[in-house]
Amino acid sequence: MPNNLLSSEVEKLGEIPLLKRLSSEAREQLLQGATKKHVSRGEMIFFQDDKAEAFFIVLEGWVKVFRATSSGDEAVVGVFTRGQTFAEGAAFANTNFPVSGEAVTDCVVLSISVAHLAGSISADPNIALAMMSSLSMHLHQLVLQIEGLKTHTGAQRVAEFLLNLCTESSGSCSLILPYDKALIAGRLGMKPESLSRAFQKLKGFGVEVKQNRAIISNVQMLQMLVEQERTVVMHSQQA
Amino acid sequence: MPNNLLSSEVEKLGEIPLLKRLSSEAREQLLQGATKKHVSRGEMIFFQDDKAEAFFIVLEGWVKVFRATSSGDEAVVGVFTRGQTFAEGAAFANTNFPVSGEAVTDCVVLSISVAHLAGSISADPNIALAMMSSLSMHLHQLVLQIEGLKTHTGAQRVAEFLLNLCTESSGSCSLILPYDKALIAGRLGMKPESLSRAFQKLKGFGVEVKQNRAIISNVQMLQMLVEQERTVVMHSQQA
Repeated sequence: MPNNLLSSEVEKLGEIPLLKRLSSEAREQLLQGATKKHVSRGEMIFFQDDKAEAFFIVLEGWVKVFRATSSGDEAVVGVFTRGQTFAEGAAFANTNFPVSGEAVTDCVVLSISVAHLAGSISADPNIALAMMSSLSMHLHQLVLQIEGLKTHTGAQRVAEFLLNLCTESSGSCSLILPYDKALIAGRLGMKPESLSRAFQKLKGFGVEVKQNRAIISNVQMLQMLVEQERTVVMHSQQA
Repeated sequence: MPNNLLSSEVEKLGEIPLLKRLSSEAREQLLQGATKKHVSRGEMIFFQDDKAEAFFIVLEGWVKVFRATSSGDEAVVGVFTRGQTFAEGAAFANTNFPVSGEAVTDCVVLSISVAHLAGSISADPNIALAMMSSLSMHLHQLVLQIEGLKTHTGAQRVAEFLLNLCTESSGSCSLILPYDKALIAGRLGMKPESLSRAFQKLKGFGVEVKQNRAIISNVQMLQMLVEQERTVVMHSQQA
């Protein structure tokens, strides 16, 4: 264990996506190469363009990650707090930091050197597999969440699905539905009846569905439908 | 290279999050343990509860991943197509598959054994680091996207931010803003003026902001605001 890491802090580390599936032995092994640092408000944690040799976990406080723009402004890329990792993308990729990190409150930050992580992985590749497993599962959950959030109306959702299958970016397009309608409905989180209703509504936007074939008469019109706000769509459907 | 992998297929593999940052040597090394399989429509690729010893990449067609529910129904967990990985969460975690995988169209699927992946990582831990880097960066992008999508009106966004800082789940709550208002605005993707306007609107919902302190007079009322649909909020703001 690194210098005086509290047991509550160790517990928190077990919840973050990157370390979630590590065995307690593997976590202990990894934390032997960790350094706990107290950083004062306004202090820099790392600088843009420096070689990324460690990644960080916030134990307490708030950290801002930002990029200096060519005009001299600051673009805030992320703000991280308790239990979140930052800068690991660059560190694992063995590149320079594309951003700077600064404490915006007094902070406690844990830094784990990539050399130590690589050594741990060499000794036990299961450490890497467990970390990759957590990241993959977290990623899938986020993708599902985004799919749900993106879906404005049912008709928009179905239109987006059809456009993803469409090889044309303008004019008309004829395509084969890749699998049956019950599964399409399931994938889009809709009931089969709602899918039928959505297909009905899409007729007004030039979409003809017959068995497993869909014909889009005007790809750009359908794209516009997808991009419209929910309220506008509801209005045009009533009209 | 595995049996007759097309160069267009190899190119596609370089674009998926899991393999994006691998050097071409590392990718070649990994693909030496890959098996390309043609799977017919309706054929099973793997079964729920089997030991997960490989993960998969779709090269062509559509794959359905589903779970048999206790009532005998099928819950579709995901549908994957060209360039997407599936079942890697279970495979990397060295557990049994929590789901089954079935080809819903004729498919071409690449399977990579975890034993081979672990061997490659042992020989070169940078392979694992590159894979973890890609996954981490992809994850951050998705989190940013979700933050954007979740944000209904500006007032709702700010209310959500305040509620996350609040330690009470009902009654009133007094809290210190963790960093300055310009940074709060930046983090929420708003201009400082919009943040001020949002604070103004939140007064109608019992929120008082003075310097770096916010007082929420009724936490549950604020939670209701966050959960309301955009249209409802707009209505109550006009009232």
